[in-house]
Amino acid sequence: MEDVVIRTLEKVPLHEPILVEGLPGVGNVGKLAADYLKEQLPAKPLATVYSKFFPPQVYVSEEGIIRLVSNDLYYWKAGGKAERDVLILGGDYQGISPEGQYEITERVLDYCRGLGVKEVYTLAGFAQGKVVEQPRVLGAATLPARVEALKKLGVVFSRNDPGGGLIGASGLFLGLGRLYGMEGACLMGETSGYFVDPRSAEAVLKVLSRVLHVEIDFTALESKAQEIDRIAQKIHEAEQRSAEPSAPSGGPPREDLGYIG
Amino acid sequence: MEDVVIRTLEKVPLHEPILVEGLPGVGNVGKLAADYLKEQLPAKPLATVYSKFFPPQVYVSEEGIIRLVSNDLYYWKAGGKAERDVLILGGDYQGISPEGQYEITERVLDYCRGLGVKEVYTLAGFAQGKVVEQPRVLGAATLPARVEALKKLGVVFSRNDPGGGLIGASGLFLGLGRLYGMEGACLMGETSGYFVDPRSAEAVLKVLSRVLHVEIDFTALESKAQEIDRIAQKIHEAEQRSAEPSAPSGGPPREDLGYIG
Amino acid sequence: MEDVVIRTLEKVPLHEPILVEGLPGVGNVGKLAADYLKEQLPAKPLATVYSKFFPPQVYVSEEGIIRLVSNDLYYWKAGGKAERDVLILGGDYQGISPEGQYEITERVLDYCRGLGVKEVYTLAGFAQGKVVEQPRVLGAATLPARVEALKKLGVVFSRNDPGGGLIGASGLFLGLGRLYGMEGACLMGETSGYFVDPRSAEAVLKVLSRVLHVEIDFTALESKAQEIDRIAQKIHEAEQRSAEPSAPSGGPPREDLGYIG
Amino acid sequence: MEDVVIRTLEKVPLHEPILVEGLPGVGNVGKLAADYLKEQLPAKPLATVYSKFFPPQVYVSEEGIIRLVSNDLYYWKAGGKAERDVLILGGDYQGISPEGQYEITERVLDYCRGLGVKEVYTLAGFAQGKVVEQPRVLGAATLPARVEALKKLGVVFSRNDPGGGLIGASGLFLGLGRLYGMEGACLMGETSGYFVDPRSAEAVLKVLSRVLHVEIDFTALESKAQEIDRIAQKIHEAEQRSAEPSAPSGGPPREDLGYIG
Repeated sequence: MEDVVIRTLEKVPLHEPILVEGLPGVGNVGKLAADYLKEQLPAKPLATVYSKFFPPQVYVSEEGIIRLVSNDLYYWKAGGKAERDVLILGGDYQGISPEGQYEITERVLDYCRGLGVKEVYTLAGFAQGKVVEQPRVLGAATLPARVEALKKLGVVFSRNDPGGGLIGASGLFLGLGRLYGMEGACLMGETSGYFVDPRSAEAVLKVLSRVLHVEIDFTALESKAQEIDRIAQKIHEAEQRSAEPSAPSGGPPREDLGYIG
Repeated sequence: MEDVVIRTLEKVPLHEPILVEGLPGVGNVGKLAADYLKEQLPAKPLATVYSKFFPPQVYVSEEGIIRLVSNDLYYWKAGGKAERDVLILGGDYQGISPEGQYEITERVLDYCRGLGVKEVYTLAGFAQGKVVEQPRVLGAATLPARVEALKKLGVVFSRNDPGGGLIGASGLFLGLGRLYGMEGACLMGETSGYFVDPRSAEAVLKVLSRVLHVEIDFTALESKAQEIDRIAQKIHEAEQRSAEPSAPSGGPPREDLGYIG
Repeated sequence: MEDVVIRTLEKVPLHEPILVEGLPGVGNVGKLAADYLKEQLPAKPLATVYSKFFPPQVYVSEEGIIRLVSNDLYYWKAGGKAERDVLILGGDYQGISPEGQYEITERVLDYCRGLGVKEVYTLAGFAQGKVVEQPRVLGAATLPARVEALKKLGVVFSRNDPGGGLIGASGLFLGLGRLYGMEGACLMGETSGYFVDPRSAEAVLKVLSRVLHVEIDFTALESKAQEIDRIAQKIHEAEQRSAEPSAPSGGPPREDLGYIG
Repeated sequence: MEDVVIRTLEKVPLHEPILVEGLPGVGNVGKLAADYLKEQLPAKPLATVYSKFFPPQVYVSEEGIIRLVSNDLYYWKAGGKAERDVLILGGDYQGISPEGQYEITERVLDYCRGLGVKEVYTLAGFAQGKVVEQPRVLGAATLPARVEALKKLGVVFSRNDPGGGLIGASGLFLGLGRLYGMEGACLMGETSGYFVDPRSAEAVLKVLSRVLHVEIDFTALESKAQEIDRIAQKIHEAEQRSAEPSAPSGGPPREDLGYIG
């Protein structure tokens, strides 16, 4: 088979669709945001992306049913105040090698160009390495006009962040997207980088909902954020205790906690 | 040459063949089961699979004869109570890179589709990280009906196992198999993960023999299991001794024992 | 898309162009030299090289604008005493895998052959592992006549350096270039290998300017070199202090200082 | 360019040529033997093999001349008691990835088939992990008849060695060679694995010279062996001294000594 296979599930004409990308990454912010957007609109399955650049893995559902790892495109036909349709790309993994990242991104961009996409928003987390109480949304864009437009929505364009640029799908969909005639921006929610972060995803989605002119009910995401808060608080307390005199070696480093979702 | 080369050794018409896959993996359960099934039926060589995604390696027989590492397809013409022919895929290695796993699996599936295969059973071990006295057989399938059918044969479908899904050929043959119009299931024998485990292979084969309607004499596999039991017992005793007061640092971790076949 | 994509920005006829390559590497000497040459001539953008063998990364400008990592070809139409046009290849990265190095180099060489290039100079640093006060320029060439010509310009051809040969783009553009009918040489500025080294780049450029018959104002490069000198001096002093009796374990190893640009 | 490029330097008809492969590996035995054979016959350059599966590297001669890393085919027209021509494959590297090993071997085999090769001898070292005073030559072959023929020349076919098979070019040229209609054998000189081992190469060549019906003057190889012996002896003495009571931690492990050529 080809390196990347895209299976169309439903052929549907789209009106000036905007592509929203949110795949696993820092704090899982992008994926959380994209998945939540998909559920809230709600968006319907449009195509499945398989690739040998994903891990050779299947997931098994609670009912025992096997599913090959994939990325997935969903579509939403515009309604309410929104005038343009929305495509959402989510999934289990980003490509697991640099070449794979390029190959998958290109094939998806090529496919989306065929669907009429000219505008892309990528969603990601920006690791601050410390607890972030009220996550800001940092931005990067392909055009100065878009930078200005996003600034008005409260997006922060910082001279030094992200200093090393963006690595992975969120950058590549924009950088390669330009070669496919697409413009767009990346919305990065600040996050500690230690936990899956629904609150950062919420901050990102609040900006995106204004860009897309859609209304999103954040109740479920907020309760997920509070759950993570509670877990983080407990771990913090455990750290405090283990950092007391009786534990001379100090508590476990935060990096060891892994993701909790 | 191509990335994957399949050399047909014998052209033989097959009647609704069922593909059974058992390659090296956790506890070598899948490979042990597939190899034992092949010997017991007995199945004959049908094709050899070479690939640059296997290690660049040859094996040397006791007589000094060289053989390039490969996967191998064997066939068995149905007899007795069985109505359908059986294809068995065994071999020295799984593909050694993620891309290789995909490429090899696809080529073998494509070849097997040409032979009329529409049903696949993959055999694997499921590492429990502790000694398993009476291994259960866990399952995962491509269709709910198959889940129900296997439950009746005693296969356990656990809500949480395997939590992270299946990685490697046993998952991929099913996940990719669906793209080739095949349905099937994975039978996973519980195993410690520390030893080659013929007893777990036996548990898997007992289920599979009922699926295939074949009769298998387990005497040789049972004696191999007892041999491994003796070795494991000796190591366990050695651990016990080294864990006594005189050895303050405790015995070696089990993970260091490696596979014993 | 292809593995390597070269986008022509301006079609311009070139007169017997000489290709100068300077990509990131030891002491960043080659990149510093090529970038400085580009600014001083000044050279204009001719083509952009994208590749899946670069990291999947975009850079973000201070204004928040995204740019996909790339290599870049610039051209300069001969003037003054120079009779031949100059092509300069700079960029963000070398290919990140051995295969990628070959693929990118070949595609760029093929493209440059189409522009009439028959002569290549590659610029690099040569790590001495110790502070180099007055960097010499070491050479390696594709033809004995070129060795002799460069010796007259003060380039050192050492029997033992570089003992292990040249690894990366600076060697490959010459080694592969011969298969494309190109001859040339590598100019390696001695450098400690611990810092970005503008002084070594200056030494390399002084030779190259005579090869190309161009005049270069080294004021800006010299002031950059002095800045690095000051940083190195401060670190050296810090090392001295930490190496005194009160710090029994000695100062940090130089390797940990990383690059400072 | 292609993944593997073979440049023919001289077109020459060959009479039933036998291919001898000796590339870098354990103790450099194969490469030493092939290079020495090439010099003694003497053999002439026939073709150069370049590949992106070699390191992206050039070597620089003492005169400052650059050469891209390669494998190289030499030929010798039969004379004296020999009736068949000989092809020798030597070079700087084996392919640096498993896929690369396969790709290069296949392309060279395909090329050699075009030259009429039906018989292959591969030369290698067999690491014993301890000093070997009088290296035996172990064998592995593609056919029982060849095993018997080599036994008569003193080659040892051991039931257990090499237990894990052969990894790399020496195995692959035979294992893949069979798919190209070639038969042959691997001659493995016992070696410690700690040093470049001309004595082991000599043992291998003594067998090979009888296979090829050529006469080889071993004087130069013998003096190289004695030189290595002297170096090994000095290191051994240094180890002895450092292992005495005054050095409680013992001498450096032999593995750290690296290769000395």
